[in-house]
Amino acid sequence: VIREVGIVGGGQLGRMLTEAAHPLGFQVTVLEKTPNSPATYAGARQLVGDLNDPDKLKELAAQSDVLTWEIEHINAEALEDLAYSGYNIQPSPSTLSAIKDKYQQKKDLEAAGLPVVESVAFDTFSDDSSPEERIKHTILKLGGNIIFKTRTGGYDGRGNFRYQGDVAALEASLGSDWDNLYAEKIIPFDKELSILAARDLHGNTVIYHATETVQKNNICHTTITPASIEPRMALQAKEIGHETMLLLKGAGVFAIEMFATDNQVIINEIAPRVHNSGHYTIEGAVTSQFEQHIRAITGLPLGSTALRAPAVAMINILGTRDEPLNREGLDKLMAYPDTHPHFYGKDSRPARKLGHITVLAATRQSALDRATAARNLLTV
Amino acid sequence: VIREVGIVGGGQLGRMLTEAAHPLGFQVTVLEKTPNSPATYAGARQLVGDLNDPDKLKELAAQSDVLTWEIEHINAEALEDLAYSGYNIQPSPSTLSAIKDKYQQKKDLEAAGLPVVESVAFDTFSDDSSPEERIKHTILKLGGNIIFKTRTGGYDGRGNFRYQGDVAALEASLGSDWDNLYAEKIIPFDKELSILAARDLHGNTVIYHATETVQKNNICHTTITPASIEPRMALQAKEIGHETMLLLKGAGVFAIEMFATDNQVIINEIAPRVHNSGHYTIEGAVTSQFEQHIRAITGLPLGSTALRAPAVAMINILGTRDEPLNREGLDKLMAYPDTHPHFYGKDSRPARKLGHITVLAATRQSALDRATAARNLLTV
Repeated sequence: VIREVGIVGGGQLGRMLTEAAHPLGFQVTVLEKTPNSPATYAGARQLVGDLNDPDKLKELAAQSDVLTWEIEHINAEALEDLAYSGYNIQPSPSTLSAIKDKYQQKKDLEAAGLPVVESVAFDTFSDDSSPEERIKHTILKLGGNIIFKTRTGGYDGRGNFRYQGDVAALEASLGSDWDNLYAEKIIPFDKELSILAARDLHGNTVIYHATETVQKNNICHTTITPASIEPRMALQAKEIGHETMLLLKGAGVFAIEMFATDNQVIINEIAPRVHNSGHYTIEGAVTSQFEQHIRAITGLPLGSTALRAPAVAMINILGTRDEPLNREGLDKLMAYPDTHPHFYGKDSRPARKLGHITVLAATRQSALDRATAARNLLTV
Repeated sequence: VIREVGIVGGGQLGRMLTEAAHPLGFQVTVLEKTPNSPATYAGARQLVGDLNDPDKLKELAAQSDVLTWEIEHINAEALEDLAYSGYNIQPSPSTLSAIKDKYQQKKDLEAAGLPVVESVAFDTFSDDSSPEERIKHTILKLGGNIIFKTRTGGYDGRGNFRYQGDVAALEASLGSDWDNLYAEKIIPFDKELSILAARDLHGNTVIYHATETVQKNNICHTTITPASIEPRMALQAKEIGHETMLLLKGAGVFAIEMFATDNQVIINEIAPRVHNSGHYTIEGAVTSQFEQHIRAITGLPLGSTALRAPAVAMINILGTRDEPLNREGLDKLMAYPDTHPHFYGKDSRPARKLGHITVLAATRQSALDRATAARNLLTV
């Protein structure tokens, strides 16, 4: 019987996982470097330590009936070792390894016949190729409209660089470890989508409605669910979700980010965890992504992914400057109907995710308008 | 600006208040005698101490921007003193004093023209009246079908005794402090109702849908919202809710328990706090009673009381025997649609409230049936 849940990472995702786990009777312990992590604020116990430290990971695994994570930039090898030693880790750490390398992730999806953006890795060139030669070959293959990315470690736009002919700027942005770089063709798209999928321990899978995400400066800014796309595109996104899940092993929630072009859906990136694009599910769906993940990894059956309203918008509260948590404007915000702010308990830093606001409404436009207006009421 | 919320009491009500307060960016500290109270499990800090200790109450008030409570059997006089000293306490401690004495509560309601059950207090008799004489006079006034209650300190049926001619049994049950007893006429009723009402700091009031409560052994067992009553009765219940709120001072959520007879609604009892009959609001209403209370006492505007489904049932999980928290059957329960268990983190004792289950459904009958079936899946 599972009672103790260990989570690698104690940020806002760990916090919202804790908020979902506790009423179901689970105990949560998070591993996080800085004491008093956001998750502890929701009642999680904390093991203080580095997310990559094999000893700390083992310590957390040993005291947990199941171990999971809220962030993918962790020591996948150490987790694989622990899984081989018999510790219960969900989802499978092998999936974490496969996904951590964004280039390998794309090649695996491609090999499975799934639609992905064309890409070229830099380690496929001979060692004595100069950066200029590598870039030239890449442009010959992908065309001139390309983005360079680090294969591992990037998130929220960090580790991405749009190449416009300046090699020095590329190196300044992403470093000169060329073997850790790859290039992607930039494709024109109408919308960015996200599909949340979950699998339980028995292999059952559920897929949430497609969510439309709007990024600003490479950070998820706003989401609206359901996405406003043609039925055949929604079906295609869902099918891709199901097929992608065949490549991802173990139980839990996954987020599949996609581009919708004028005639097809293409996978952009996979996150092997609960995801910012799924925050709307706390109030907006019958089962929140956080409860769904806890259900999945603890052997409980999955819950309904149905929406609680015709349209659900989510907008992030990003910090604009260094200051303590500032909730000025909250009194005005709370007068909005069916509008639900979540603060993560973090002090403000520029571009830091401090919280989010979810809005349930009768129409897409009213949900989006109200979310934006609500966010603008806060002075943070 | 309010940031620190102090709560007198750290049981499940304090816990669910904490769950609602934290995402809004408030910090919660509870005062509770036993360390590791249920509220701490949701991330509340705890001040360990007696709920009646004036020094502890002052300590909590001093570190809180607003002080409230989750239980009414506390030191109302000490809270009144603190309020006079300028501490921000919501709702008004004077209301707590007025409500604590159930007989006085009824007389106040009666004086305001509100419908209450007829009652007789024992301290109205001369000191040398024997118990038998007092009972005789009471029966002459109310008739033979009466229930004796302690004026203060009773809850969940404790402090109630249905008199059937045995004075010794009455004394064995309620003690011989006759001045603390009063008698109520037992009236035949069709249904028991509960109306949740909230007032903000500006005096705005909202009333939730009438909830039908089913008691077993004097403990709230099941609720179903909206209550199945004639529209004129629902209107009457709502009107009584509004009028009763005029007597209750300060901001916060109040529960007004009523009897619906064949032709009218009569007030039974008032709880000056969030209430078991309002647990359904966590998933079942746009604004949960816990968030509503936090909004009210912190100066935020009140939220919508609208239902999220045509019918919302709630069933308590009461302990049947002494054992550690046992969630056997949870896997089957979680397969039920829109069914939401909440465990409070307490070990099982006979008749102890260990948790509750909320069910959202399309019809009253399916909500009630599913709630009962879900409860029966748990072996606790």
